[in-house]
Amino acid sequence: MQQLILAADLGGTNVRMAVVSPDGTIHFRARRATPTARQGIVDALVGLASECRKATEHLGRVVSFGVALPAVVDFASGAVSSAPNLPELDGFAISGELSARLGLPVLLENDATAAAIGEHWLGASREFKNIIHITLGTGVGGGLILNGEPLRGVDGTAGEVGHICVEPFGHPCGCGSVGCLEQYSSGSAVVRMAVERSAEFPTSRLTRREGLTAYDVYKAAAEGDELAIEVFRTMGFYLGIALGGLVNVLNPEAITVGGGVANGWDMFHETTYRELQYRAFQRPAERVKLVRASLGDDAGTLGVACLAIKDLAKAA
Amino acid sequence: MQQLILAADLGGTNVRMAVVSPDGTIHFRARRATPTARQGIVDALVGLASECRKATEHLGRVVSFGVALPAVVDFASGAVSSAPNLPELDGFAISGELSARLGLPVLLENDATAAAIGEHWLGASREFKNIIHITLGTGVGGGLILNGEPLRGVDGTAGEVGHICVEPFGHPCGCGSVGCLEQYSSGSAVVRMAVERSAEFPTSRLTRREGLTAYDVYKAAAEGDELAIEVFRTMGFYLGIALGGLVNVLNPEAITVGGGVANGWDMFHETTYRELQYRAFQRPAERVKLVRASLGDDAGTLGVACLAIKDLAKAA
Repeated sequence: MQQLILAADLGGTNVRMAVVSPDGTIHFRARRATPTARQGIVDALVGLASECRKATEHLGRVVSFGVALPAVVDFASGAVSSAPNLPELDGFAISGELSARLGLPVLLENDATAAAIGEHWLGASREFKNIIHITLGTGVGGGLILNGEPLRGVDGTAGEVGHICVEPFGHPCGCGSVGCLEQYSSGSAVVRMAVERSAEFPTSRLTRREGLTAYDVYKAAAEGDELAIEVFRTMGFYLGIALGGLVNVLNPEAITVGGGVANGWDMFHETTYRELQYRAFQRPAERVKLVRASLGDDAGTLGVACLAIKDLAKAA
Repeated sequence: MQQLILAADLGGTNVRMAVVSPDGTIHFRARRATPTARQGIVDALVGLASECRKATEHLGRVVSFGVALPAVVDFASGAVSSAPNLPELDGFAISGELSARLGLPVLLENDATAAAIGEHWLGASREFKNIIHITLGTGVGGGLILNGEPLRGVDGTAGEVGHICVEPFGHPCGCGSVGCLEQYSSGSAVVRMAVERSAEFPTSRLTRREGLTAYDVYKAAAEGDELAIEVFRTMGFYLGIALGGLVNVLNPEAITVGGGVANGWDMFHETTYRELQYRAFQRPAERVKLVRASLGDDAGTLGVACLAIKDLAKAA
């Protein structure tokens, strides 16, 4: 019987779980809506784990459990240091509780860093060792791999590329600053900019639409709507500015772009690449590959599976 | 007889050399103006090396030679990849030539990275392992230490913090982009901003002065000149914006600020710190120390001496 890994990605909306073998094959996936209370979250993870174990018991034995979550984690102790989008987990030693209930070693990782590790292991950046991974979702997240190792920073907060300032006197950000990348290149920003600029484009099909989503703006852009095209141009422009700075500072081999807004890739990637080339020095700009992430929603689960597998190898 | 290290810092204006023992003591310093031709530079380094060896022959035996220079270096082969401020060295395998003439192993390092290593070894950041070192001179340079190791990037171009964009439609930069940090926080920028804004401050002692230097602006600021104070406020503001982004991305323990313009520390560091705190997330912002570099002109030579000493230890 082979060894199997349970890997979860605990998001603000859904908890996803997968059973992964050491070669990265995903044997089973399960999903639930994320509960709102601390105990509910633990119960959901335990319930999903039972479901996953039952579904794969003929394949092997689950030996470890990795959890990616939208939080600063204390990687050593397995506690959640702070989780702005799941505040009920703040300060919670969740890995101890999960470990006791499941009888498995548990490790935690920040979800953006986990996605970077996943893409590095099996995805778009697997041939590189120095990578910036950007997640364009409701917000903008990021994970860094340098010399093949994730950079977590001294408190585990590294990788917050969404809060690089790209407009010194720009739009207010939830983080308390103004002009952060997240205010121009996230899904929420795409919607906000479409609303803000609609007066300039009175014939746009987006003008005066209620309940607009970033996907609506993308569809309109793909069909030639000028307001929507302009919004994605702005979105791609600021992303290129932030990436140009990161290329100058880190001289990486690749930048991978994932998250829901990456589905609008054909509407922004040329603008982003052009701006990156303009902003960064020639040598690192020519070096760096700008590519779409390839693992989709599996990036985070595969990332924590990769860490769990490395831990097993170290222990063996 | 103890082992001694020759360490040089080859700048656009001066070549400095020092004799350093493995504990970091500097036993002798020498300096010459930087010649303009490739052969002149090699001769100057060889001449300074003879002078240094002669002056310290009673103390020990020189066993290795480190050279910091304003260039992208191929750390492995010992060649200069590109040197925008000393273009005569572009593509030159300088360490082979120096090694042959001096009978010593020679290693090269980028000067900003060398300064970061020096400050980390014996200077303001010696108790930390995750450091951003900024050099505010004619331009703005930078070096990164992550987990105790210098980050050079895949082509050796990492650390170019001076070319992070801080104003997307800002002042044109020599690098080909616009709005780079260097255009707001370097010595040249301080002078340019003082000239540009003098019409707003007709009573300033700096207005209509010819041949203004950054030091003149600093002196005026220290004496209460409002134009000069405003220039340093702007200089510190943009530095804080760039550092806030770096703190969000790297979550370092310390930022050290060196270079000639750091002499104006009391005119900008409070603005910079305030802006950094405003721009970065609370946790990494509270963590990071913003300090003045402490080694002055010796940072680069001590940095390459440190590398040479580590190499000796590895070889032993």
